[in-house]
Amino acid sequence: MTPPCVILVEPQLDQNIGKVARAMLNFGLTDLRLVRPQTEWHNETARRLSAGAESVLENARAFDDLMAASFDLHHLYATTARPRDMIKEVLSPREVAPRIYEDIQTRGERVGLLFGPERCGLENQDIALSKAVITVPLNPEFSSLNLAQAVVLVAYEYFQAQVSAVPDAAAPTPTLDEDPPATKEELQGFLGQLDQELEKSGYFRAAHRRAMMTQSLHNMFSRMDYTSQEVRTLRGVVAALVNPNGIYSRPKRKRGE
Amino acid sequence: MTPPCVILVEPQLDQNIGKVARAMLNFGLTDLRLVRPQTEWHNETARRLSAGAESVLENARAFDDLMAASFDLHHLYATTARPRDMIKEVLSPREVAPRIYEDIQTRGERVGLLFGPERCGLENQDIALSKAVITVPLNPEFSSLNLAQAVVLVAYEYFQAQVSAVPDAAAPTPTLDEDPPATKEELQGFLGQLDQELEKSGYFRAAHRRAMMTQSLHNMFSRMDYTSQEVRTLRGVVAALVNPNGIYSRPKRKRGE
Repeated sequence: MTPPCVILVEPQLDQNIGKVARAMLNFGLTDLRLVRPQTEWHNETARRLSAGAESVLENARAFDDLMAASFDLHHLYATTARPRDMIKEVLSPREVAPRIYEDIQTRGERVGLLFGPERCGLENQDIALSKAVITVPLNPEFSSLNLAQAVVLVAYEYFQAQVSAVPDAAAPTPTLDEDPPATKEELQGFLGQLDQELEKSGYFRAAHRRAMMTQSLHNMFSRMDYTSQEVRTLRGVVAALVNPNGIYSRPKRKRGE
Repeated sequence: MTPPCVILVEPQLDQNIGKVARAMLNFGLTDLRLVRPQTEWHNETARRLSAGAESVLENARAFDDLMAASFDLHHLYATTARPRDMIKEVLSPREVAPRIYEDIQTRGERVGLLFGPERCGLENQDIALSKAVITVPLNPEFSSLNLAQAVVLVAYEYFQAQVSAVPDAAAPTPTLDEDPPATKEELQGFLGQLDQELEKSGYFRAAHRRAMMTQSLHNMFSRMDYTSQEVRTLRGVVAALVNPNGIYSRPKRKRGE
């Protein structure tokens, strides 16, 4: 299974090639191909802007035309900013990503993502070689995505499609190992303490308000998922407030914590 | 209905502020806020790199701290590259976008997207004020997203959520009914009061524990959606606890409530 390659047609600026390499590697893409590059890409500027993705630059290959650059691929998808006068399906990065993943994953096909020159975008003849057009949905009143940002978005969507297809690859859910969630018992211990201290302080003032105000406080503190430690902190806060500068008793930690 | 604002904490490079403005406007975001900017953003470099999004730069506002920058917002979401040792929900841009859209569209709330300095990312104290953390899923072997690219991806996902939400004529008009959500200003008023009272009570005991404990409390209270009334209740609770049987001053309700 080979992730898609990125094909830049006539890239004009070395810095953009560096930025594209960086964008690619962030999302696990490593195969960069250049069609008639108008600049160097092994120089210091490109390397610096790759921010550590030099391997992508080093392995990049240049070709004379798109035919040569795409010789081993099964599908090309052409990224364009503007609609073209061409009968070709137009997809957003979000729509195209699962299709590309499917091409690659289930059929073992190889896919190229095609991006045009910075100033003018792809020529129709290159788009014509593509299976479909990718267009990023943008603010209709201000559409000004640069080359590297277009690569970021398309590569990101591919990576997302991959991550969501392979549950294990998804970011791990943060665990509360060190800091287990509070049990209701712990929370109620805190709420009991709070009620008691508020009662002593005269907070409720009239008996008939007590039930309503207590309920409102319980509701507030029960909506949230606290950890055990946080509930202990809340208890410490209440104890400190009612007993300033005192040696207030700190709630004991349970064994094993 | 106000789209999210973007808050950059201590941005270091003028060019990045320009690129962020461009990224924002591509996806219809216009409210840029800068916390302690370390560079100019009205200069030629920033303007050039905004690629036409000068209006975003011109309307950008600078603040001394995150508290001031977020005074009118209801929710902050903090973008971080690395997992932090903090109990806070971690969401991908894709997961968070529909939630933010929902906050804004159906409840008329105001949301800030928080991004840290280029070199080091956000400080835990700023993350602590946020509702949840946004982390972009990246290649685990090469994770190197720059500031503007992070903004591109989060703004893109918000735009996607907006585009894919089919406008529904039957949808209720967003109303802030009897019990509107608390703004950050209100929450910060409570947190300031709590800090002050805990300081007086000797809760922090040693100066070096103060920052850590304050952060932990801010984190705990910022994770949740309180209503204005609930924040007033919390203030009343603290006032009652420190001044038992006293005629503690009740925070004033705003006119019209």
